[in-house]
Parts: sequence; structure tokens; C-alpha cells
Amino acid sequence: MKTLAKSLSTDEFEGLFQRVCNWGVWGDDDARGTLNYIRPDSVRKAAALVRSGRTISMAVPMNKVAGPDNPHPVAHYMVQAFDVDSALGEPGFSLDYIAGEIHGDCHTHVDALCHVAYKGKLYNGKPASYVTTRGPQVQDITAYAHGIAGRGVLLDIPRLRGVKWLEPGEAVTAEELEQCEQAQGVRMEEGDILVFRTGHHRRRLELGPWNNGYDGEGKAGLHATAIPLLHERKVAAFFPDGDGEAVPSNVDGVAYPIHALQIAAMGMVCADSLNLEDIAAACAEERRWEFFVMAAPLRLTGGTGSYFNPIAIL
Amino acid sequence: MKTLAKSLSTDEFEGLFQRVCNWGVWGDDDARGTLNYIRPDSVRKAAALVRSGRTISMAVPMNKVAGPDNPHPVAHYMVQAFDVDSALGEPGFSLDYIAGEIHGDCHTHVDALCHVAYKGKLYNGKPASYVTTRGPQVQDITAYAHGIAGRGVLLDIPRLRGVKWLEPGEAVTAEELEQCEQAQGVRMEEGDILVFRTGHHRRRLELGPWNNGYDGEGKAGLHATAIPLLHERKVAAFFPDGDGEAVPSNVDGVAYPIHALQIAAMGMVCADSLNLEDIAAACAEERRWEFFVMAAPLRLTGGTGSYFNPIAIL
Amino acid sequence: MKTLAKSLSTDEFEGLFQRVCNWGVWGDDDARGTLNYIRPDSVRKAAALVRSGRTISMAVPMNKVAGPDNPHPVAHYMVQAFDVDSALGEPGFSLDYIAGEIHGDCHTHVDALCHVAYKGKLYNGKPASYVTTRGPQVQDITAYAHGIAGRGVLLDIPRLRGVKWLEPGEAVTAEELEQCEQAQGVRMEEGDILVFRTGHHRRRLELGPWNNGYDGEGKAGLHATAIPLLHERKVAAFFPDGDGEAVPSNVDGVAYPIHALQIAAMGMVCADSLNLEDIAAACAEERRWEFFVMAAPLRLTGGTGSYFNPIAIL
Amino acid sequence: MKTLAKSLSTDEFEGLFQRVCNWGVWGDDDARGTLNYIRPDSVRKAAALVRSGRTISMAVPMNKVAGPDNPHPVAHYMVQAFDVDSALGEPGFSLDYIAGEIHGDCHTHVDALCHVAYKGKLYNGKPASYVTTRGPQVQDITAYAHGIAGRGVLLDIPRLRGVKWLEPGEAVTAEELEQCEQAQGVRMEEGDILVFRTGHHRRRLELGPWNNGYDGEGKAGLHATAIPLLHERKVAAFFPDGDGEAVPSNVDGVAYPIHALQIAAMGMVCADSLNLEDIAAACAEERRWEFFVMAAPLRLTGGTGSYFNPIAIL
Repeated sequence: MKTLAKSLSTDEFEGLFQRVCNWGVWGDDDARGTLNYIRPDSVRKAAALVRSGRTISMAVPMNKVAGPDNPHPVAHYMVQAFDVDSALGEPGFSLDYIAGEIHGDCHTHVDALCHVAYKGKLYNGKPASYVTTRGPQVQDITAYAHGIAGRGVLLDIPRLRGVKWLEPGEAVTAEELEQCEQAQGVRMEEGDILVFRTGHHRRRLELGPWNNGYDGEGKAGLHATAIPLLHERKVAAFFPDGDGEAVPSNVDGVAYPIHALQIAAMGMVCADSLNLEDIAAACAEERRWEFFVMAAPLRLTGGTGSYFNPIAIL
Repeated sequence: MKTLAKSLSTDEFEGLFQRVCNWGVWGDDDARGTLNYIRPDSVRKAAALVRSGRTISMAVPMNKVAGPDNPHPVAHYMVQAFDVDSALGEPGFSLDYIAGEIHGDCHTHVDALCHVAYKGKLYNGKPASYVTTRGPQVQDITAYAHGIAGRGVLLDIPRLRGVKWLEPGEAVTAEELEQCEQAQGVRMEEGDILVFRTGHHRRRLELGPWNNGYDGEGKAGLHATAIPLLHERKVAAFFPDGDGEAVPSNVDGVAYPIHALQIAAMGMVCADSLNLEDIAAACAEERRWEFFVMAAPLRLTGGTGSYFNPIAIL
Repeated sequence: MKTLAKSLSTDEFEGLFQRVCNWGVWGDDDARGTLNYIRPDSVRKAAALVRSGRTISMAVPMNKVAGPDNPHPVAHYMVQAFDVDSALGEPGFSLDYIAGEIHGDCHTHVDALCHVAYKGKLYNGKPASYVTTRGPQVQDITAYAHGIAGRGVLLDIPRLRGVKWLEPGEAVTAEELEQCEQAQGVRMEEGDILVFRTGHHRRRLELGPWNNGYDGEGKAGLHATAIPLLHERKVAAFFPDGDGEAVPSNVDGVAYPIHALQIAAMGMVCADSLNLEDIAAACAEERRWEFFVMAAPLRLTGGTGSYFNPIAIL
Repeated sequence: MKTLAKSLSTDEFEGLFQRVCNWGVWGDDDARGTLNYIRPDSVRKAAALVRSGRTISMAVPMNKVAGPDNPHPVAHYMVQAFDVDSALGEPGFSLDYIAGEIHGDCHTHVDALCHVAYKGKLYNGKPASYVTTRGPQVQDITAYAHGIAGRGVLLDIPRLRGVKWLEPGEAVTAEELEQCEQAQGVRMEEGDILVFRTGHHRRRLELGPWNNGYDGEGKAGLHATAIPLLHERKVAAFFPDGDGEAVPSNVDGVAYPIHALQIAAMGMVCADSLNLEDIAAACAEERRWEFFVMAAPLRLTGGTGSYFNPIAIL
């Protein structure tokens, strides 16, 4: 079942961009974007969803092995093991070191709004030139320092379709998102965290890693026309198992339209490369597709994103 | 008010170690230690504490500047800014890179149980030689992969004492912890996360960083004799603003007795270098010292710890 | 003996810049600058200077300790020691990892020409915008890939002055360079490598590290008016024990005039932070101040410089 | 022309190890091994070989791209470009950062003697346990701090055989080395640097990178029985285009016999992964296979090796 939705022209994309644009909605200097949809009350209500108290990580293990989807693996070394005495006697300590790029298809992370520019503009119309080699002057990841907590709604597209995963290039439309809501008896509301499953990680586990970029096989994601639905519903955050993009894109001349719409236009909290296998199994088991989500980026001043480990609590 | 508790001899310390030792309690191959005290039901009850839905980070900003307490600052560089075109056209992406040691006094982190060995043994009696340059064979940070969620109980010692912070070298006894519980109307119970404030971070904010090691001024923390109280109460996790240690130590011949007792003997989930200023203010304001805590280390296979950003929800 | 030479105005500096400017001299796309003064024949003649065959490193040990002149220490960790078996049996291997900024006062390095821009222009008038987050498009360190070999001429200013080292802020004039030549019976000629000693490293060894920047005590170096002498003599490379700059600078409104003149105007091969203590002692002992120099940057495509270990052969 | 030489048994290998063992030859605490064969006089004579003064790098460009022979690519990022103003005004500076493992098939490096242990012993019989997570206590790369300068002798095996390169698995015997000497009219003598060409890098340039380990296609190198010839001739250093090993090895139960013999037994200066294409072409052109070699590791205390850029001067 390949998507049947036709490609968009650049003009149609511009229209979409304007339609979902949140610039100025929360003030000209806002850096939290759709996180503004989450108010303390939303957190309170989301916490009330906790029934069993079971916690489930939605992160993939950080990947230290180079591969077709991991050209810059994380470097991880011991700084000290117990083969040396502690300088001050007992006890001894082991220590380690980690180094790597924040964004990558092989470790779960969340993007800062400064991560994406479209036609020279960041979210809220700030000039892209605000991001230099010294880092971003606006919209770094500390805008989310106090965490991303709220109601998670899982839309499990492979389950809807009765397949193990969506194949690279397939794109999910607004209609299919709504069918999935109906099938699962759940509905995205203001302030929700959309947990969007294409089966990307499952495919990787079963078939091995693949190059999911333009010079490779591509990946499954959203059709650009699905974005207005997220906008209307005031979805606060987007937690996909790929990165939300269908590659190749369904917009002429725009390689990553979902990032442009979600981040540059809407100021949406977007995560990347989650592992949704465990939460999908748990939801199917408990037959409910809503849960409490708690996720927190590192407090990394100047970060264009952050590694993180988002947790679902059922 | 310097601690009046006398120093312990090595023999007395050995007695303490045996008294709080949890080896074998959860099976010989257990790697979760006191996290076992947190059961789904504890998470459910803790989530029910959420009233206002206000979320508060308990992390310090990651520190990229070398200083007396930060000899190995985190390296953080841009990989790409918008001064270059995206390889595939619109949109463009900014990217960054981070490198650093996990353990350090200048970024909030959580220790894996393999972080500490006492007399050649890790928690559960595993030989320290299980940790090599290739990393730990047991008890890495992924033991906490599904998060550390539960009831947080803040014991705010400076508030009890009526001071801004404890001075380096001061040690908090079991008696004082209990006085603090009483003063705040809260009590550490099984599965709780003890959020322990000495004012370390406040002192740093006001007086600037200082060398808090043995070759410097030291730091405030727990007296070794306070540990059995945590053991009896079955506290699951320990989230201090320093690292829990009083330096110089109050045990002859043991430089870091708190780590030895908590991690090697008890298998306790221990975090390090939190920022408790915001949560302390919020608790004082709301006049309650319990809240929901949600924290998740990165899923870093082989990690002896992880940077993290623990969140309190009131 | 503080320098008595007066400060230059910005206009006088502009005049100097024009006077020593080599833009276009070796073609518009030249990236080797004054390295062009070294021809195979110069190398041959320089090699003929080797008498005893004694080799002497002119590098400082790479500095892994943060300090007032080393805010970003090199990170150096073991990747593998012999505490683990080699995957394939005998023999075993130990491995290490290094990470750090190329430029810094605590490790000897050589600058690429793209390291410096003055008023928006690199050497040869190339726009500074050719250097982006993706690295330099021109004038990277591989311009020196085949090594910097030639006659080294040591001008040992502290020896001339009868002091252990020059104090921070002191600046050496053209007259003093010529006095030093005369005192040592040596003369800088076309294609030579000027090994310029202020005693910076000796001071550091004896008094400990100091902040030698504008927010600290400064450092000793060349007076801006000394540069035309190097230009007239067609000196190919400059190997100082500081970085050649006197801080504070002796030019109004130009913080680092020596870099601007040497690199941006002249396209000169400039190294940084050498250890000239051993070579100075050897020269004094052998009573000759010329020798063969052999130095090679790493072949680091896109490098704005490179760590290196320049060797003198007497 | 696959090697016809038969495999060695472990016992035969032990005999070889004893035969070429230099332990104690230069004192029990020696860390320079065969570098001791190079005396100032050898350097002087080698420098006298310089005729044209042409310098040729024997390093490959540092490889930043992950691939089958480069699982841990070097990370290289800009720290600062000219998109930001210099803090102190003119001029501006661009800066970069590099991070990576020292040893790897994709960047030219030199091994420290502590890099290899055979049966628990380093060169000179030092226990392998002297190398810990804190680094080596003996035989680090600073043993070569003052450079490796001497007469280079190129033995170009593909040229002898009339092929472009040796195929993976092929091993060069002592007889073939001597045939090559004869064909080229050159002879390895005491203190020489053997520049050993198998065409490894040429093959990589023409066919692309391949996995040259035991889990891949292997590589061409020396037969273990060739090592006594190097020992008899008192060769000081070994600069191959692969790493000298034939993989699979020609010794039962010893995966990397050449490293064991050269480094652990002989204490030989061994480099790795050179680019010998340019020097081979130059030698063929000038019809002489000896030249001056100048190479210097970084002064990296505790290094088990160092990136470097060895230069040949003809």
C-alpha cells in the first residue's frame, strides 16, 4: 500500500507553510513553540492517565557502530577502570567518556527549534544567521529545559495496515491518521504528544540498517498534507520512530518538507529516531493508545538538539 | 554548625558496610539494586502526587568552561550552521557535537552501579575486574533504561538550619535527616527518591566554583552513619546537589565512604551534582516537600553513568 | 628593557599591511604563500648544514591539564589496554584516542593560511566567507602537506638581552632582530625559517602557566614594525615560542597585528607555541644559530592548522 | 603469485621470537628499541643523500568517512569560522577541532612500543599490566619525541613482481626482499628505515576501501620468516603501506605475528598505513631507492602511538 497522494508543487507547499505558520502566536521572542500548548493543567491530566505504573523507554540504544545509517558513530571510551588504584584509596571509581553528533539516525534525540531554517528563516521569522559557529543565539534546546511532559497518543500505522512496517518512501496522509485514531479509539487533542509509528526501528531490527537518505533507499513518514491536521489539533510534540519524513519527499524541490513545516513554520517539538516497539506492544496488550510521556533534553546551552530517553508510563 | 559526629574507624566502617549490604537480596545477577524498591504501584502512587502540573528541572546547565571543579569541560561545537546550503536544497539544518566525561562535578549525571568498587568488589560482590577498558560487563547504566520514576522527597538541610548552604566539610547525620523530615512533615518511605539539598549549587552560584576535592576546600554531604537510615527506610534513589560525600570524609582511610556504602554495598541509584534551587523554592512556596520525579539516563550500553536532566512535577 | 617603540595608529598599520602584502605574487589561487620561497634547492642547501646529526624537538608536550593558558585541554583516553584479550588471540594491542582544538597555547601547532582574516579577507584577497562550518574552501593546512623543510635561523632575544625571558607585553623591533643577527653571526635569508625565541616557554616552566591573553597578563612578541624586515628578507616561515604577538598589541584597534600581517597579508607559514629551550641550549653550546629544520603538519583536509612536532637537526 | 612459503607452527614462531629478541640489548629500561641503531652519525649520512631537495609526504590524507576499513572515522569540526566577530576586533580567526583513535587503517601513524604485548609481555619483558586505563607507564610514544630521521630504503615489491599491487593474503619472504634489494641496487643497513611497499594504498585508490581484517578479505604483508633478515641487518624502522601483516597470518595461532616480532620482540619503530605512491613514482623516476626520511610523532605523553606525516627528501 504505497501512498496514492500526489506530489505537491512548490507553490502548494508555500500555501501549506503559511497555513500552519505559528510565527508571532506566542510573541516574537518565543522559543518554545507548540510546547506552549502544554500547560500545567495538561501535565496534571496526563499524569492522571497512569494506571499500572509500568515505565517503558522509547529510545534506541545509542549506536557506536558505523553503518549505512550511522556515518558518525558515537565514540565511547573508558576514562578509568579498576585496573588503577583510586588516587585517595578506597573506594575506586570507573569513568567513561562519550563524544558524538547530536543529530543522527541512530540515537534518539530531540531537535531544538534552531535546528531548521526554511528560506533563511528559523521559527518565528528569526534570521538563520542567528546560528553561527558559536552556536545559536535563539531557540536552543534549553527552551525545553523543564521537560516535555504530557499525554502521549500512539498512532500505530503498521498495525492499522496489518503490516510489520511501512516501506521506505511510503507517506501517511491526514486521512490515514484519522482512520488510525478511529481504529484505536483515541484522538489527538491540544497539548498532546503524537507518538507516530511507521515501524522504522522494527524494520531495522529485522532487516539490518539501511541508508535511508536520498542517496539510499529512503524512509517512510508523513505526507506533507498531513501537517495541517496536527496544526488544527494543536499537537504539542511529535515523537516518530523515523524522523517523520518520507524520503523521497512528496514536495517538488523540498527535500525535507516535514521538518520545514513542523519546526520552521509551527515551532513544533520534534524528536527523532525513537524505538516504539515496546510501547506499541504494551498499548496493543492493554488495548489503549494513550499514556503519560515524560522526556527531558539535557540542559545544553547552545544545543541544536539533545540526546534523550523519552519514557512512557502506562 | 559543623557536624559534631566523630570520625569512624575503618573497623566501624566495615560494620556499617555489612549492615547496609544488599548483596544477593535481589538475586546474584541483579543490576538494578535499590531500583527494585520501585514497583509499578509506587510509580502509580507517585504520579498521583501531581497537583499543579508544574515541571521543574533539577539539572545544572552543562558546563563548558574549565574551572576548579571542572578540569575536563564538555566540548561542544557546531557541526553545521546555516552558512552552508543544505546538500539537498530546502530546508537547511544546523547540527552540533558534544564530547565529555560522564562523571564530573559540573554536569548533572547518574551513576551506574559499576561506577564504584570497594576492596575489589562491585555491588553484589561482582569482581571489579569485570570493568575493563572495553567497559563494564555488568551493571552498566542501561540497568536504568526504563527510567527512574517515583516519589521524590526533598530534605532541605540549609532550610532546616536557617543558613544559605552548608559549608565544605560539614556532614549531615541520621538525626538531622529525621529532624528535617519532621520539620517538613514528610517521611522517606520504601521506593522513594531522596532529594538531598546541602546548598552546594547555591554556594557555587553565589561564591563561584571551588575545588571541592581533597586537594581543595572539600564539600558538604552525609555523615557515613546516616546511611543505615536510608537502608532501613528502603530509599530507592539518592539525588543530591553535591555528590552526597562530605570531604574530608568522616571515615579513617576511606576517602568516599558514601559512594562505597550506597553504590557498592546497597546498590543504590545515585545521581550527582543536581541543581535543587528551583525545586527547593517551589516546595517552600507550596509548603510540601514531596513530588513526582521522572528521570531517565541515556540508553548508553557500557555506560558507567549518564548525563541526565531529572524533572520534578508538582 | 620594555620596548620603547611607540604604538602605531590604524592608518600606519594599514600602510604596513600594504607594504608587506603578497597578494597575487604567486598567482591568485596560491595557497602556499611564503612557502614558495623554499625551493628544492633551499632544502638541499639546508640539509647540507647537518653536522653532528643531533635531532632536537621544538615542540612542547601536548597539555592535557586545564589551566589559565589552556582552557580547552586535549582529551586523551585509552581505547583498549591489555586488561582485555585481543579478539583474535596473540598478540594484544593497546589503543588510545585523542580529541582537542588544534589552536591553543599549550600544544605546538602550525596555522593554515585560512586561520586568519583581516577586514573580511584571507590571504590573497579571498573572502573570509570561504571558511564555513563545513571548513575552509581554500588555504587549508594541506597546502603544507609535503612538509616545511629548510634552514632554521634562531634569533634568541633573551640571550641578546642577557635575561631569562622577555616579560609579557615586551615587543621586539626590527633593530633588535638585526642586533641579534649580528651578535650571533647569522642572517635571515630568502626561504629561511625564523625560529624566534622570547623565552615564553622557559617562563612557563619556571613560573607556571599564566593567562597570556587580553584578559590576563599578556605575552612578549614582535613589534608590528618588525614585519617589513621579514618581508624584505623573504623569510619563509616563523616558528616562535609564544605566537609572535606582543599582548597588549602595539597597534591601535588591532588586537593581533602580527597574525594579520604575517598570515593575511604575507601568506607566511606561521607556527605557534614552540619549545625552544633545547635548541637554544644546543645552539649556544655549538655556537652556531643555523640548522636544518624539518616539520610536517598532518594531512588533515580542511584543517585550519595542525598539531606538529618540528625537529631541528644540527 | 601467492606466497608459497608454508605456515609456521606456534613452536617455530617461538623460535623466531627468541631469535630476533632484543630484550636487554640496550638496557632493561630502554624504550627506544631499534631507534638506538640510529646514531647522530647515521642522521648526518642520511641527510647527505639529499640531492634535488624535493620533499614528498608519505602519509594518506586523514580519513573522516566511515568505511569497511575505517569503522571509527576521525571527527573534525570547525570551532569558529568568520561568521562571528573576533572577540577583540581585527583580525578574526578560524579554529577547528579533531577527535579520533590514533591507530586505524585510514590515517598514517606510528606505534609506540607499548602498543603490543605478546604473552603478557611488552618489549624488554615489561609486564603488559604496565598499560592501564591511565595509559602506559613505559614505552609511550614520547620515546621518539626527537624524531625518526635516517636513510629510507624503499623496497617496492609490486614493481619487482610487475604488478600494480599485492593481493590480500600474499606474504613477502626474506628471499623476495633480497631479490628486491638486488633489482633496485640498494641494501638495508644498520639504522635504515625500511619503506615497504605492497601497493595497499594504490589498491584502495583504484578499487575502493575493503575490510582488510580477519572478518574481511585480509591484506598483503611480510611473511613471519622475513623478520630475521630485518634483525640481522639492524633495520631501525619499518614504514609499510599496509601495516606489515599478511592477513590471514602465516603462523598458527598468532593473528598478527609481524607486530609481535617487530614490536614486542625487537622493539622496532613501526609505522602504519603509509601512502607510498608518490615516493615510489619518484624513486622509479630518479632510479634510486634511498632517500632521507624525516618523521616526528606528536609529543603526546602516554600515547600508544601518534598520527604523523613522514616526509621523504630526495
